[in-house]
This record gives sequence, C-alpha cells and structure tokens, in this order.
Amino acid sequence: MKDFVIIGHKALTSGDFSLNDLPGSAGRMDILCRCINSALFLSHEMRRDINVHLVLLGEPDPGKIVRFNGKELKYLNPDERSSGALIKKALQKDALEYESSSTPGVWIRKADLQQLLEEFAEKERSIYYLREDGEDIRGIAPKLDDSVFILGDHMGVTEEKESIIENFATKTLNIGPISLHSDHCITIILNEIDRATE
Amino acid sequence: MKDFVIIGHKALTSGDFSLNDLPGSAGRMDILCRCINSALFLSHEMRRDINVHLVLLGEPDPGKIVRFNGKELKYLNPDERSSGALIKKALQKDALEYESSSTPGVWIRKADLQQLLEEFAEKERSIYYLREDGEDIRGIAPKLDDSVFILGDHMGVTEEKESIIENFATKTLNIGPISLHSDHCITIILNEIDRATE
Repeated sequence: MKDFVIIGHKALTSGDFSLNDLPGSAGRMDILCRCINSALFLSHEMRRDINVHLVLLGEPDPGKIVRFNGKELKYLNPDERSSGALIKKALQKDALEYESSSTPGVWIRKADLQQLLEEFAEKERSIYYLREDGEDIRGIAPKLDDSVFILGDHMGVTEEKESIIENFATKTLNIGPISLHSDHCITIILNEIDRATE
Repeated sequence: MKDFVIIGHKALTSGDFSLNDLPGSAGRMDILCRCINSALFLSHEMRRDINVHLVLLGEPDPGKIVRFNGKELKYLNPDERSSGALIKKALQKDALEYESSSTPGVWIRKADLQQLLEEFAEKERSIYYLREDGEDIRGIAPKLDDSVFILGDHMGVTEEKESIIENFATKTLNIGPISLHSDHCITIILNEIDRATE
C-alpha cells in the first residue's frame, strides 16, 4: 500500500463550490483533482493499492480530510470535473471524527495533518516529504513500495505545516533537477517504484 | 526544442463544444488538455522549449492541427478548462493550409499526421513513437533533447495511423513496465530528459 498526502492550503471545506471554477472559488481544488488522477489512473485500469488523502485547510471549516481509496473506488473518470464532483459530494456530508463514505471508495472526516501523520507513525509506516532539496528518489526507490508521501500545493508547504512534517518524516525526497507540480511528482514517484519493483 | 504530437482520434474539429463536457461532447478533448499541462508546466514557470501539436481527427472536419508553442504562450493556466478554452478559441478560427494564431502561442491549420511528420523529416528531426513494446527510454535519454515524440489517446493509435508513423519513426520507446495515460508518459519523458541533460 502507498499513501499520498496532499496539503490543500486554501482548498474549500464546504461542498458549495462550482465545478466550473475549481481553481478560483474552490481554492485551487484543481490541483488536488490532478493529484487524484496521477495517483490512481493506469492506462486501462486503476491503481488499487493506493490511498490519496486530501488535507483541506481552506474556509469555512479548515481541517477536513477526504480520502480516495483505490481498492474500493467507483465512479471516477480521469477528468478534473469527475474527481471534483466526488470531492464536492464528500464535502456535502457532515464531517465527523470518524470516517464516513460519500460514494464507494471516497471517505471524509474532520481531522488535520498532525493527526493523520500520528496515525501513520503508530502503524510504523515510512513517511517521505517531497521537496526540491531532498535526496534523489532514484537511489532508494526499491524501498518505497509501502510508504507514505507528503506533497504541497501551489503554495508549497507553509513553515507551520513543515514543522509538523519534520517530526514524522523519515527522509526528504526529490524527483529530479527541476521543480514540478505535485501531480507530476506523483507520476514520477510511481514510475520509479514501478520500475524498482517490477 | 522538443515537439510532442498527440493524436486525438475523436477530438472535435469545431469550436462549438462545451467546456463543461470535455470528455463527452468534445471527443475526449480532456486527454489533450492534460497533455498540454504535462508538456508545458513547471512549478513556477513554463517550459519554453516545447511545442505540442494536437492532431484532431474527429468530426465535423477531420484533420486540423492545433499547436501550443511554449515560447510565445500566454493566458494558459494549469486546469483542463483553461487549455480547453484556448483549443476552443483556435477551432473557432478558419483553419487554412498555413498556420494562423488564435491567441499568443496557439496556432491552427488544416493538416494531417502524414504532412506533420513529413515536415519533421525534412528538418531531419529524430522522431520517437511511444508504445508499450518499445525500447526503454532510460538508456537513450541523453540523446533526446531535440526530438519529436508521438503519442496516442484513449484509443492508443489506430493501425492506419501506426503505418504512417512507422514510415517516419527513428525508434519506438517505452517509459516503464506499466502502461500509462499519454499525459503521464509526457511527464516521465521530460523528467528523463531533465535528468540526462542537467
């Protein structure tokens, strides 16, 4: 199992945004939608061994986590509107302390980054933080098959969130010589693991 | 300069599609929009040394090519609707035998795959066709900096188009052990070249 954690610093935490304006009124939700696509789609099937945790920190109720679980997932198409619609549906449910499912394979709860990382640490999962100055992923790809990867959004990761991550991260990783969008980083991480574990 | 050629077998060739339904009524235009994103966006800037040629083969007037030129490009945001809107605007112009510009860095003309590949061949460009059974890109990435890459869409590439490509392609390439969407392949190709030429 691989888990991707994406921090959406401005991503809306209510379900009343327009699917026609994912970048604007939904707080750069388009970035999170593209991360869903990169993490879950293969050419003719889905990656079933993956969870994507979207940590939504925007208004009006910061601190909700929407989880896409590849194993159970249904009704997801590759386009941004499709993942946007499933996130919207999840946000229309009450977010409680325990997870509840909005559509097959999509779960929502009230939680923050600290809590999520504590849970991974309790399970003794290896946690990697993606940042430009990290160690080259290519050297350690064979060890990454059962890991957790944390990525930021268009704002990167704020200092406050970074100090939380530093308490948990096993290592900081980098995917190449040029700084890329988070969804592109996910594609590259998975390609490195596919190659290392084939 | 790197050129990406994406074949949109069903992609609409008129500008009267809805940006709210890029996968359906626009003939899987969403795939082409994601390829634009993968080929052109870096974290905080754009890849200026890239052309993307969308070969549109759907109704009502099959055989138009929309070219995105990284060097001149303006008004492009990373979301699918943004590239969809620029493609739509291009298709609202008359497509003539010579290129005309619809917005800065976006060009349209009436042309087909055969003609486009003939032009690359005349300029003695190396042309690579991406397919699962190709040679591993990792071995030859250092030689790819000034190349042309041809990719299919959700239909792959039809036999008819493949026989055209085979007349021009230097080599068939593969990006890893698992078959991926074209936009993910583009991300990986560029990462391999970034690493090999840094």
